[in-house]
Amino acid sequence: MSSEYTIGVDIGGTKVAVGLCDRNGLVGPKTVRETGEPKEVVEQIEQVMEESDCDYRQLAGIGIGSVGPLNLEKGLVLDPVNIPHWKNVPLRKLIHESFNLPTYLDNDANVAAIAEKELGVQSDNLIYITVSTGIGGGIINDGSVVHGKGNAGEIGHMVILPLPYGPLCSCGKRGCLEALASGTAIAKRGRELLGIDDSAKAVFEQARQDDPVAQRIIKDAAHFLGVGIGNLMEIFDPQYIVLGGGVTESWDLMEDTVRSSAEVYSRTKVTITLTTLGADIGLVGAAMLPFARQ
Amino acid sequence: MSSEYTIGVDIGGTKVAVGLCDRNGLVGPKTVRETGEPKEVVEQIEQVMEESDCDYRQLAGIGIGSVGPLNLEKGLVLDPVNIPHWKNVPLRKLIHESFNLPTYLDNDANVAAIAEKELGVQSDNLIYITVSTGIGGGIINDGSVVHGKGNAGEIGHMVILPLPYGPLCSCGKRGCLEALASGTAIAKRGRELLGIDDSAKAVFEQARQDDPVAQRIIKDAAHFLGVGIGNLMEIFDPQYIVLGGGVTESWDLMEDTVRSSAEVYSRTKVTITLTTLGADIGLVGAAMLPFARQ
Repeated sequence: MSSEYTIGVDIGGTKVAVGLCDRNGLVGPKTVRETGEPKEVVEQIEQVMEESDCDYRQLAGIGIGSVGPLNLEKGLVLDPVNIPHWKNVPLRKLIHESFNLPTYLDNDANVAAIAEKELGVQSDNLIYITVSTGIGGGIINDGSVVHGKGNAGEIGHMVILPLPYGPLCSCGKRGCLEALASGTAIAKRGRELLGIDDSAKAVFEQARQDDPVAQRIIKDAAHFLGVGIGNLMEIFDPQYIVLGGGVTESWDLMEDTVRSSAEVYSRTKVTITLTTLGADIGLVGAAMLPFARQ
Repeated sequence: MSSEYTIGVDIGGTKVAVGLCDRNGLVGPKTVRETGEPKEVVEQIEQVMEESDCDYRQLAGIGIGSVGPLNLEKGLVLDPVNIPHWKNVPLRKLIHESFNLPTYLDNDANVAAIAEKELGVQSDNLIYITVSTGIGGGIINDGSVVHGKGNAGEIGHMVILPLPYGPLCSCGKRGCLEALASGTAIAKRGRELLGIDDSAKAVFEQARQDDPVAQRIIKDAAHFLGVGIGNLMEIFDPQYIVLGGGVTESWDLMEDTVRSSAEVYSRTKVTITLTTLGADIGLVGAAMLPFARQ
């Protein structure tokens, strides 16, 4: 009997999703809970295994995508900003020992890129960019994730406006892509220029009501996102750039500027597209990890 | 009898070098000529084969590193700026048909990176940066060259000072790393600020004579090189950044600034070092191509 199923685990700052998948994606069941203690992840996996009809012998393994930072070599979740009570959690070992199945761990942006490779645009050369509170990236080159020593893909911290020009980033540097084009950056400029003490969403809403300042804020962010994409095109010459994350829900307000800036700031061609994989992108991408190692 | 030798071919804008190599590098003979017609490359290879004692059956193949742009899939040298009389030269086919040996082609920066992987720093995660008239890069991730669709590694055209800040680059964009930190960029600022109508070398010489303006020009270039290196660290998290090219002959005037800016503009660690492989780096890197495909 071949191992035709896997369990995908998506660990986010607010929610943990676990689901049974095959090579084509989620087949269910799936559970979603608020992020709690690591042992609750084990319980969620148990729940999915109990609710499914799947035989243990049909399981190729468990794949986990998690917010970082991670230690991939040791399988640790180090100290995620958004899960303050998790510190150096040996998650891979914990789950492996609980189920005695091959268990794999990678970061959320990397597994999203794997999801795009296997189930989305299905290319061996792509970059997945999540534009949300922060900006993260997963890079697939020649079919494999670019890991470097373990922490590659930090495209949100590519500096494109060095001192003295760029705004301060959460990482302490100035002029990072994340400080110029993330939801946090848009919200910050909303506070500064519009007096809106709210999220990026409020700036997008005001832009939709034809507020020229809000529209300027969005266009500036979109421009810098395009510059960043242009740089990635020069560096990787990928076939696809796939965008996801909350900010891209307002893609219609950003698209023209992102595309034109990316074109001006690179000399090669790429297909820029939104992900079609929805909220399960992390879960299904994580679920592909055991198949890749079979 | 195993195929223990290869022929490496290094095609530059001014010179073509050909030499017999084994897995440890150049064993000789080696010939160097001014860059002429493509058929002269064939003659140089013939010369090396005649002068060497090497049996045809001992040759694993011929590896070519060339200035770009190239079409890797078709094995073409397209239209190098520095070899104006070469247009769409089917170099791989020409050499393959002349010798009936496996023949491989890659660009000069990529083969230099391969040389570093095999013979230099010997790491599977490194970026080789040549800082010369232009700035080029070869990226090794997990042991393989990052090619993307074919033209990856154009790190000199990563924009780090977008409009309206950055100086014009030869590629038509503004604020590329190459427009800020290459020999051409240094020479241009020498003309603007020092009235030296000469190469970067003259600016370096004037800096050595304690001219504060010349020193400022060098430090600015070194700073932007450090910013670019910092970005590559965030994106690739490599083990080594290896620098080569004419500008690095004055590394002592740039080193402190490059290192401190790279450190400020990234959150990961890397070993930054000059290549120790000298002028043959392209030749020996090209010579490794047939071994890699064996």
